[in-house]
Amino acid sequence: MKTITGGVTAAKGFFANGIHAGIRKNRAKRDLSLIFSDRPAGAAAVYTTNLVKGAPLIVTKAHLADGRARAVICNSGNANTCNADGLEIAEGMCRLCAEALDILPEEVAVASTGVIGQPLSLEPIAAGMGALASGLSREGSAAAAEGIMTTDTVKKEVAVEFVLGGKTCRLGGIAKGSGMIHPNMATMLVFLTTDAAISPAMLQKALSGDVASTFNMVSVDGDTSTNDMVILLANGAAENPEITGEGEDFSAFMAALNSVTVALCRMIAGDGEGATKLLECRVSGAADEGAARAVAKSVICSSLLKAAMFGADANWGRVLCAIGYSGVPVDVGAVDVAFSSAKGEISVCERGAGIDFSEERAKEILLEKEIEIRVTLHEGEGRATAWGCDLTYDYVKINGDYRT
Amino acid sequence: MKTITGGVTAAKGFFANGIHAGIRKNRAKRDLSLIFSDRPAGAAAVYTTNLVKGAPLIVTKAHLADGRARAVICNSGNANTCNADGLEIAEGMCRLCAEALDILPEEVAVASTGVIGQPLSLEPIAAGMGALASGLSREGSAAAAEGIMTTDTVKKEVAVEFVLGGKTCRLGGIAKGSGMIHPNMATMLVFLTTDAAISPAMLQKALSGDVASTFNMVSVDGDTSTNDMVILLANGAAENPEITGEGEDFSAFMAALNSVTVALCRMIAGDGEGATKLLECRVSGAADEGAARAVAKSVICSSLLKAAMFGADANWGRVLCAIGYSGVPVDVGAVDVAFSSAKGEISVCERGAGIDFSEERAKEILLEKEIEIRVTLHEGEGRATAWGCDLTYDYVKINGDYRT
Repeated sequence: MKTITGGVTAAKGFFANGIHAGIRKNRAKRDLSLIFSDRPAGAAAVYTTNLVKGAPLIVTKAHLADGRARAVICNSGNANTCNADGLEIAEGMCRLCAEALDILPEEVAVASTGVIGQPLSLEPIAAGMGALASGLSREGSAAAAEGIMTTDTVKKEVAVEFVLGGKTCRLGGIAKGSGMIHPNMATMLVFLTTDAAISPAMLQKALSGDVASTFNMVSVDGDTSTNDMVILLANGAAENPEITGEGEDFSAFMAALNSVTVALCRMIAGDGEGATKLLECRVSGAADEGAARAVAKSVICSSLLKAAMFGADANWGRVLCAIGYSGVPVDVGAVDVAFSSAKGEISVCERGAGIDFSEERAKEILLEKEIEIRVTLHEGEGRATAWGCDLTYDYVKINGDYRT
Repeated sequence: MKTITGGVTAAKGFFANGIHAGIRKNRAKRDLSLIFSDRPAGAAAVYTTNLVKGAPLIVTKAHLADGRARAVICNSGNANTCNADGLEIAEGMCRLCAEALDILPEEVAVASTGVIGQPLSLEPIAAGMGALASGLSREGSAAAAEGIMTTDTVKKEVAVEFVLGGKTCRLGGIAKGSGMIHPNMATMLVFLTTDAAISPAMLQKALSGDVASTFNMVSVDGDTSTNDMVILLANGAAENPEITGEGEDFSAFMAALNSVTVALCRMIAGDGEGATKLLECRVSGAADEGAARAVAKSVICSSLLKAAMFGADANWGRVLCAIGYSGVPVDVGAVDVAFSSAKGEISVCERGAGIDFSEERAKEILLEKEIEIRVTLHEGEGRATAWGCDLTYDYVKINGDYRT
C-alpha cells in the first residue's frame, strides 16, 4: 500500500468539483461541492447519533437504503437543520443534481454543513449547478475539499493505492472537521471513494467496523454534531474480483480504508477550531479495547488537559483526573503516564504517583505541534488511540460569534 | 426564612479562621482555613465519584464514619492527590489540628485543593497551626472563605436564618469553585454549618437529597474533580427539638439548606474560571425530573454554546444540538427555546424550528451578566435547573499554565 495524490478522485471513474455558488457571502470561498462516479457504485454510510438530525441525513439515508449511489452533493455555510422546509430543500438539491448529471435523484447523497436553523435557499444551488456539473474533473478533489470547509483552515484529502486480486485499486477521500466534533457511532463529514469492487454489504461492514476505532475516537470540543456523516462509494472500476465476504482481500481493503481514515482523523483533530496542536492519546494495557477507548477519549476531551497542552504544561494530574472520571473501573494506583513528541519522550507519572522529571525537558517536548499522551494501565491487552487538539484563545474567538 | 450575614460562622457555636501559612508562595493569599464547633456536632458529607480520590477525602470519610465531627481543616495551593505519602500527610493535618483544638483527630475533617501530584509538606501547616487556632473567631468566615480559594476571583459565603420548633436556627457556608467543576453525586469544596439540632442520619439524608438538584447540576468545564466534597456540620446550639425523622421541621430544614446551596451554586458557576457570565438553564415539560436534569446539564456543558454566550450570540442551534446528544429520548420537533436576562426575554425557537426574532434585541438580552436559557419540552411535568458559565479567553489563559 502506498500514499498517492488525488484525494476523492484518486479512484478510477470518480470526478469532483467545488464552486462558489453564493450560499456564503464571501465570494472567495467555495461553498458547493460535487462528487460523481461515471458508472454505478455501491454506497455505505454512517450517521450522527444526535437526535437532532439535519434534513440532508434523513434524505441521504433514504436514498442509500438500496446500498447504491453515484453522486454526493454538499454545501457549506448552512446546515439545513431545524428548518421547517429542510427535507424539501434537501430533496431539491438531489433533484437539481440528478438533472444535471442525468441520473436518478435516488442515486444522489446530500450533505450540508454550517449554521443550524437558518433557511437554506435552493436558488444559488440551482443557479450554480450547471457550472458545478460541467466543471467535474479527475483533478477536482481539491476544489471539492475546499467547498465543504467551514472553519477549517486547511483542506483535508488523502488517498492510497493497494492491490486486490492482482489489480491495483485506489481509495481516497476528503473531510471537513474543525468544530462540533465529537462523533459517536458516526462522524463529521467525510466522503470516501474507491474503485475496488466490493459488495454493498461488505462495503458497509468495512465502514462500520472502521469508524469505531477512527472517527469515533476524535473529539475537538465534545459537541456531537447534528449533520455528521461518512459516505463511502465503491464503483469497481479497478476490475478486481468483487469482494463478497471476509478473507484476504477484505482485510487488505480494510487496511487501505483504515490508513485513509486515520490520516483524516489526524487532519481533523489537528485542524480543530483554534487548535495549535494535535493531541494523540494512546492507551495500552487496558482490560479490553472498549475500556481503552473510553479512557483515551476521556483524556483528549478534558478541557483542562487541552488548555494545559496549549500552554505546553506537563500537568499530568489532569490526565489522571480524566482517567478517574472516564467511567472505566481502572486501578488508578497502577497508571503510568508519559508525554512524547518529535523531541523525545518523558515519563511523568508511574503507578499513579508523580515522579521527578525535568520541567524544562517536558516543556521542550510539549512545545511541538504533535503531542502523544501515553497511558499504560497494566490490566490487560486492550489498546486504543484517540485524537484531539488543544483548547486555545482562538477556539473561543471562532465560536464567540460564529454566525455574524 | 431570611438571608443573614456570617457565612460559615452564622450558626451559633461555630468559629472560623484563615491564614497564609506558606503553602502558596504568594504571601498576600491565605492558604489554610479552619472551621470549629465549640461543642460536639453531627456531620454529613458527600464526595466526588472520580476514581482518583484525593488522600484528604479518604481520611475524612473514615473520620466521619460515625456521623460526627467538630472541625474542618482545609488548605489551598496543593490537592494532596496522587502523592505516595498523601494519606500520612492528611492524617498529619488532622493530628496537628486536633492537638491545637484539644479534640480527637477523628473529630477533624480534612480537605485540600490545588495542583494534583505535587508533594505537600506538613511544615508550614505545623508552623501556622497555633496562629490559625488562636485566631478562630465568630467573625472568621470571610478569612476561611479566602483560605480555600484557588483560581476563584470572589469569596463565596452565604447564610440564612429560619425557625424550627419555635427556635431560631441558622445555616450557612463557604465554597470554593472555579475550575475542574462538574460534580457527579458529589461536589466541589463546600463547608456548611448549622446550629439546628438534627440527628446525623437525617443530616446525611438532607444533604444527599439536596445535592442531586444543586451542586450536581453545576458545571464549569466538564471535568469532575478528584477532591470534591461537601461537609455539613450541625451542633444543635439553637436548642430546637432534635429532628429525628421526616416531617414539617425536616422540610423547613431542607428548604433552608436548599436556599444556601442554590446560592452557592450560582456563585460557583458565575465565578467559573475565566467566566464573564452566569448561565442558568431551566428545563420544564420533561418526561420526568431525571430527563430534565440530563437535558439541562447537557446544555450548560456545551463548549460551543458557552462560547456563543461569551459572544452574546443567540445561536440557539447549539442548544438544540446539545439537547439532541443529551442521551434523553426527547421529541426534538417539540422543543421551545428562549433566552432571558434582566433586560427581558426573547423566544428564538418554537417546536424545534427557528422563528423570526430581532438579533438586536437578543444581543441586548445576552449582553447581561446573568443569562437564563429556557427549554420547554412539552412531554410531561419534569423540571430542573443547571448552572454554568461562558467559555472565555481567560479560561484558556488560566489553564494554559496553571502550575507555574
